[in-house]
Amino acid sequence: MKRSQYAVIGLGRFGSSLAKELIQLGYEVMGIDMDEEAVEEMSEELTHVVVADSTDEDVIRSLGIRNFDCVIVAIGDDIQASILTTILLKDIGVKMVVAKALSELHGKVLHKIGVDRVIFPERDMGIRVAHQLVSPNLLDYIELSKEYTIAELAVPKCLDGLSLKELDTRARYGCSVVAINKKHGDVIIAPTATDTVDEKDVMVIIGTNEQIEHFENALVR
Amino acid sequence: MKRSQYAVIGLGRFGSSLAKELIQLGYEVMGIDMDEEAVEEMSEELTHVVVADSTDEDVIRSLGIRNFDCVIVAIGDDIQASILTTILLKDIGVKMVVAKALSELHGKVLHKIGVDRVIFPERDMGIRVAHQLVSPNLLDYIELSKEYTIAELAVPKCLDGLSLKELDTRARYGCSVVAINKKHGDVIIAPTATDTVDEKDVMVIIGTNEQIEHFENALVR
Amino acid sequence: MKRSQYAVIGLGRFGSSLAKELIQLGYEVMGIDMDEEAVEEMSEELTHVVVADSTDEDVIRSLGIRNFDCVIVAIGDDIQASILTTILLKDIGVKMVVAKALSELHGKVLHKIGVDRVIFPERDMGIRVAHQLVSPNLLDYIELSKEYTIAELAVPKCLDGLSLKELDTRARYGCSVVAINKKHGDVIIAPTATDTVDEKDVMVIIGTNEQIEHFENALVR
Amino acid sequence: MKRSQYAVIGLGRFGSSLAKELIQLGYEVMGIDMDEEAVEEMSEELTHVVVADSTDEDVIRSLGIRNFDCVIVAIGDDIQASILTTILLKDIGVKMVVAKALSELHGKVLHKIGVDRVIFPERDMGIRVAHQLVSPNLLDYIELSKEYTIAELAVPKCLDGLSLKELDTRARYGCSVVAINKKHGDVIIAPTATDTVDEKDVMVIIGTNEQIEHFENALVR
Amino acid sequence: MKRSQYAVIGLGRFGSSLAKELIQLGYEVMGIDMDEEAVEEMSEELTHVVVADSTDEDVIRSLGIRNFDCVIVAIGDDIQASILTTILLKDIGVKMVVAKALSELHGKVLHKIGVDRVIFPERDMGIRVAHQLVSPNLLDYIELSKEYTIAELAVPKCLDGLSLKELDTRARYGCSVVAINKKHGDVIIAPTATDTVDEKDVMVIIGTNEQIEHFENALVR
Amino acid sequence: MKRSQYAVIGLGRFGSSLAKELIQLGYEVMGIDMDEEAVEEMSEELTHVVVADSTDEDVIRSLGIRNFDCVIVAIGDDIQASILTTILLKDIGVKMVVAKALSELHGKVLHKIGVDRVIFPERDMGIRVAHQLVSPNLLDYIELSKEYTIAELAVPKCLDGLSLKELDTRARYGCSVVAINKKHGDVIIAPTATDTVDEKDVMVIIGTNEQIEHFENALVR
Amino acid sequence: MKRSQYAVIGLGRFGSSLAKELIQLGYEVMGIDMDEEAVEEMSEELTHVVVADSTDEDVIRSLGIRNFDCVIVAIGDDIQASILTTILLKDIGVKMVVAKALSELHGKVLHKIGVDRVIFPERDMGIRVAHQLVSPNLLDYIELSKEYTIAELAVPKCLDGLSLKELDTRARYGCSVVAINKKHGDVIIAPTATDTVDEKDVMVIIGTNEQIEHFENALVR
Amino acid sequence: MKRSQYAVIGLGRFGSSLAKELIQLGYEVMGIDMDEEAVEEMSEELTHVVVADSTDEDVIRSLGIRNFDCVIVAIGDDIQASILTTILLKDIGVKMVVAKALSELHGKVLHKIGVDRVIFPERDMGIRVAHQLVSPNLLDYIELSKEYTIAELAVPKCLDGLSLKELDTRARYGCSVVAINKKHGDVIIAPTATDTVDEKDVMVIIGTNEQIEHFENALVR
Repeated sequence: MKRSQYAVIGLGRFGSSLAKELIQLGYEVMGIDMDEEAVEEMSEELTHVVVADSTDEDVIRSLGIRNFDCVIVAIGDDIQASILTTILLKDIGVKMVVAKALSELHGKVLHKIGVDRVIFPERDMGIRVAHQLVSPNLLDYIELSKEYTIAELAVPKCLDGLSLKELDTRARYGCSVVAINKKHGDVIIAPTATDTVDEKDVMVIIGTNEQIEHFENALVR
Repeated sequence: MKRSQYAVIGLGRFGSSLAKELIQLGYEVMGIDMDEEAVEEMSEELTHVVVADSTDEDVIRSLGIRNFDCVIVAIGDDIQASILTTILLKDIGVKMVVAKALSELHGKVLHKIGVDRVIFPERDMGIRVAHQLVSPNLLDYIELSKEYTIAELAVPKCLDGLSLKELDTRARYGCSVVAINKKHGDVIIAPTATDTVDEKDVMVIIGTNEQIEHFENALVR
Repeated sequence: MKRSQYAVIGLGRFGSSLAKELIQLGYEVMGIDMDEEAVEEMSEELTHVVVADSTDEDVIRSLGIRNFDCVIVAIGDDIQASILTTILLKDIGVKMVVAKALSELHGKVLHKIGVDRVIFPERDMGIRVAHQLVSPNLLDYIELSKEYTIAELAVPKCLDGLSLKELDTRARYGCSVVAINKKHGDVIIAPTATDTVDEKDVMVIIGTNEQIEHFENALVR
Repeated sequence: MKRSQYAVIGLGRFGSSLAKELIQLGYEVMGIDMDEEAVEEMSEELTHVVVADSTDEDVIRSLGIRNFDCVIVAIGDDIQASILTTILLKDIGVKMVVAKALSELHGKVLHKIGVDRVIFPERDMGIRVAHQLVSPNLLDYIELSKEYTIAELAVPKCLDGLSLKELDTRARYGCSVVAINKKHGDVIIAPTATDTVDEKDVMVIIGTNEQIEHFENALVR
Repeated sequence: MKRSQYAVIGLGRFGSSLAKELIQLGYEVMGIDMDEEAVEEMSEELTHVVVADSTDEDVIRSLGIRNFDCVIVAIGDDIQASILTTILLKDIGVKMVVAKALSELHGKVLHKIGVDRVIFPERDMGIRVAHQLVSPNLLDYIELSKEYTIAELAVPKCLDGLSLKELDTRARYGCSVVAINKKHGDVIIAPTATDTVDEKDVMVIIGTNEQIEHFENALVR
Repeated sequence: MKRSQYAVIGLGRFGSSLAKELIQLGYEVMGIDMDEEAVEEMSEELTHVVVADSTDEDVIRSLGIRNFDCVIVAIGDDIQASILTTILLKDIGVKMVVAKALSELHGKVLHKIGVDRVIFPERDMGIRVAHQLVSPNLLDYIELSKEYTIAELAVPKCLDGLSLKELDTRARYGCSVVAINKKHGDVIIAPTATDTVDEKDVMVIIGTNEQIEHFENALVR
Repeated sequence: MKRSQYAVIGLGRFGSSLAKELIQLGYEVMGIDMDEEAVEEMSEELTHVVVADSTDEDVIRSLGIRNFDCVIVAIGDDIQASILTTILLKDIGVKMVVAKALSELHGKVLHKIGVDRVIFPERDMGIRVAHQLVSPNLLDYIELSKEYTIAELAVPKCLDGLSLKELDTRARYGCSVVAINKKHGDVIIAPTATDTVDEKDVMVIIGTNEQIEHFENALVR
Repeated sequence: MKRSQYAVIGLGRFGSSLAKELIQLGYEVMGIDMDEEAVEEMSEELTHVVVADSTDEDVIRSLGIRNFDCVIVAIGDDIQASILTTILLKDIGVKMVVAKALSELHGKVLHKIGVDRVIFPERDMGIRVAHQLVSPNLLDYIELSKEYTIAELAVPKCLDGLSLKELDTRARYGCSVVAINKKHGDVIIAPTATDTVDEKDVMVIIGTNEQIEHFENALVR
């Protein structure tokens, strides 16, 4: 299977982080920005880099962007450039265009002009950080549905050495432990009742939001 | 248990999203920004809002910020204001200060002057989006360790109606299905061999990065 | 029949001229602009005038713009404001939105986000003036099709006093005279062979572009 | 007959559109602008292009502009440059100078310093668009006199298949049909009573403003 | 005889000096400028002062400027404002308009739009100072014609105590002494051969440029 | 006698006019300005021209300005540059430094730092123009003392053909005619009683301010 | 004896520090600055504060600055304002004017226009810090002459407990100890041979630069 | 002993003065600034000069700054650049970093991020100048402790020719004369009772602040 090729337009904090991670994951990435300095900084990290104005059709065509599998429009703070670039990309037939939106209104325009996926990085990160702040032990989480969540929790001192049987999360809080990441590096998948959790281990639990919040509050007390 | 009180300094896209989510989670939040318009927009969403220059010690003291449980410095693009605000907050004795960094160097300064947690929203979101782009079925994920990941995957058409026994992910790819979020809303935790996955269901799997990538690639083919 | 109500957003040269002509034609017109001075200048000419930022949803809603029959987005040089205003108007359900485009690309975005009619005033006027410059007698014209045109021509001295029979445009050039606007004010519709044209009269002819150009060139010689 | 030569000073939206149409009509056009980018964009479309400051007498003389038959001053938004350029052109003896005015006052100055024709593109286009907006079927029109107009109307569904005899516009509304542009491309000049109009045809009528408005209103009902 | 009334538009260095001198000469002067500070500074020196934009017809009319005998347009560095103001003044019927020009081209436009007198203060003062620099004794001068000049010269030490007979300028240099301004304050008009010049007196001579230069050079030696 | 050498620093309207007049009078002039365009424009008119920052001591020394007989500091609107340039010039030992002042305060500083002569071109020209405006026949004048003036007056129609005897200015107004510039080019110095003045001649009179004003008023009546 | 009154114009870092120290020393100080915020910050520290433009003669006179014993012109970075303010102050008769200079050239102008003392704070502090950097034990110093210095040195560990006799600085290095500031707070003036120095004491020595450098180098070894 | 090497980042007034003094004291100094002009001016005075952005880690490393004994961050007015540069320097292991602070808050941040010494040049110079202003004879001083000062005083006329015995400062004011700098250049260390002070000599006295102030006041009377 041929590996996909990506182009990232806009090499600010979001765009450059995304581009570098794609390289990390083994893909080819072309980086494009109007700012010479931003481009130079990425020149050794990405497959290709180009200083170019992405709202200029001739420029965009000359880069052969049509042949990329996915183009990410990560333009910083210029809504107009973001919109004009996006419509150009759809116009010349780019299959998948992903664009970063700066506001709800901007997001709506992007949808209307045919963008395949709209991303709100600062808004989404704000939400994610809020959850982590209110639950000191919460490391990360996935919202499965409006009701169910998978949460990655640091094991606090008060639980040190307890077996899952002793914890008995299912009976007490309704939520299940689906994995334990032992501090020494092993990951126990589908742990049994005799497996223990130790301080500095990380456990993954699944349950309703209410159940998990209930459990977390018990840990802090 | 008394609920924590938060103050968010800087009501840009990240700060305002974070502040609104904290309110959503049931906490009291004071929002502070130098820009009158930004403050006015949040005035009905947060508990209190203030137009203030957070680098002015007198102003900061007069707001009683010392008594908040956690202050988030989410200042947009002004590294100097971010640093001076943070040192003021630690100086007057705020217990927990969380600050958004704009670069690695900025992050280092924040650590040195005693910030409790540094956040890189655009960088982290860039990484997260990169993973989602390369795996079309990947909805969200938690990195348990350098090796292990929990992934939330959309069930593709090619798997429609298969039982977990038929899928046999453990034998074929080494990874386990720990939950299925049925398209009609039920969530099956610790599903058994006879449970089936249908198109538009979402399944949660756990395994090493390699196992999961292997499985994902099989889905796309 | 109830007369239509119009709103014009952007009171620059194009917008204010359009708004005043609508008033002249007997309609009610609300004028909106961010610039206080521009609004004040129109305050006695239009039915209502408002100083407002048309990209602010709350503002737009509060003006009851939804109830207008047609809103013209005549925003000067700010493509972003033009696009955001337009999408807001379609979003709140304005039936007919007409927008002025500053470039082909801008025009494409406007079409994609659902504008009902896109106008290129400077481009269209450039074309119209070009035609008038190359034909000194050409006063105005309508392009019926790619081939046929109706042209309004000043009668030059060399034709002074000739009857249509003497002119015999049909036989010589293939084009027909459909009306004569006599210099004293009468308009002869469907003139007969004995009607004469005098210097300073204006005649309306219909024919193919080639026939009319042929005739015009004969006049200049 | 030698073809005229044109120079267009100012290659903004109006100037470049005018210049391109003149080329289209078969004339030689020199394009002049201070902005390098604007000039470059036109370099393949016009006969000659020059980056030059048109208020600098030496520059203007060195371009041999004196020998052009007509120079159009289409300078964007700089009234001062427009005036100084125009007086320079008349000073060096250009026979015909056409200039775009940005306001009535600007137009007056242009007249006083001897410009041969003043154009108000945005104002005139505003008026033209206003007429089209209030008559949904009106495609284009020529104002023959204060009283008489020739109008190009889209044939609406309600008239589909009617013969001119059935329409009887002369008797009912006082206006005459002078041409029909059939949707299949033929143009019927001076149509007879048995000619029919079909939906999507375009008909050209002549009459007083009142008669035509009366007829148009009947179409909309 | 009713004394004339003046209005000075533009209260920069030239305009305010001119306005104050007119007051000094016993006339009524209205001062107008867009800059509040400039106006305030003149408020006690002139008969009336107004903060106003002189390119705004309504403003100009409301000031009753039409009734002034002479309006001086002394606008600093804004050629456009100078031209638009001037045409407005001529339009509303001001009998005499005097305007300061910033360049030859500007001067030409002012002439064409009907200004009654154009002044080039910096250019003229440059010429005047040049003459004074090259003749250390030259205090002031009037150019009577291309050939003849009246010069006001400081009497140098070398001439101290000489009678006009001894000086004998007519015979030696061809120029005549028409007046002597004695250092003690008396002015001798049409002095006789026995009148003497003393150091620090000032003498007025008339002659051709050549004769006067010849005489001056003799003084310096 | 060796001719003097001049340097003019600042080639704006005043400086360039002064420099050109010095050249006209037969002297060598070096022109200096920071603005490349201003320098280029003078390059063919002056003996030498240099683009240089006159506040940089090294630059000033390298130009050998010390050897010029007189340096004129005609810097446009930058008081600081004017002061620093002047002190540099006196420091390196330039014999005569003449400087243009923008205000009374600026003039005072220039005097204190040792400038040999301070010029106020706009102020002085304002005064001169004021006098000419109030006396329509006054062409030019020299103020001999606070009391006495020499005035150059256009001979108005009402005096056409009168002999000096008939005019009898001495008896009627107290002032004397010292010269008549006949319209055909001759200049009559010390005219006699039988010499006549004709319309369009220019006469030079000497008298007290009051006498001359009295005479002028009589002419206008 | 009546205590002197001071005015400080310019309340930047240097000016405000100077003003506050004068207050500390028991004098009355008026603070003046154009910047409202700077003035407000000092309002509780100084006797009077005023927001004013110090280059405006009327303003300066109205403040009665003439009666102050000493005025310090501590204007930040605006050389022009510094010069104009200073000349105004001398003009209205302020007895003592001290001014901060930003460069040698600025300093020269200040001297020429009659300033009583010119200060170069950044230059002088740069010199002082250089000395302290190269001698780690040097705390402060006074340059008595080009040759002699009084130095305040921290007593290093290697000298701990030695009597002056044991140190014998006179014999070994040629310099004398004139005082010892004991770490417990006593100051021994003109110490005798049996007095000891202990680590963390500070000793004051006097000698030639060479002798002191010699001694310091011995301490570091 | 190998001589220390210094680098000075920021070549403004403070930095360049410090760097030049270090050179004067015999050390090697590298000067770094972003401003090309500032660097060029120092190029012949310092050992090395570099135009570089000190917040760019790669740049800083490439200069080998790690090997310098002491780096002084004398950055002008950019707090952010000062902080980021400082943390970089500590990060790469520079042993001693000295930084100039623009405010108390800035100083606090510098301390927290590990700077070895913080300098407030303008504040300290303000204090020093204040002392000199209030004591006209005070030339310089060292604050030994909160109570004791060594002062360098100009000998006023009223003391001319007195012996120390006659002065008897110890008995009258409590302070001792520790050195006399005779106007002819000799310095008398530890003067005896028969040594005299003459006008224009400088004497160094030691005592409590109160004693010295008491003595100084006596001198002025």
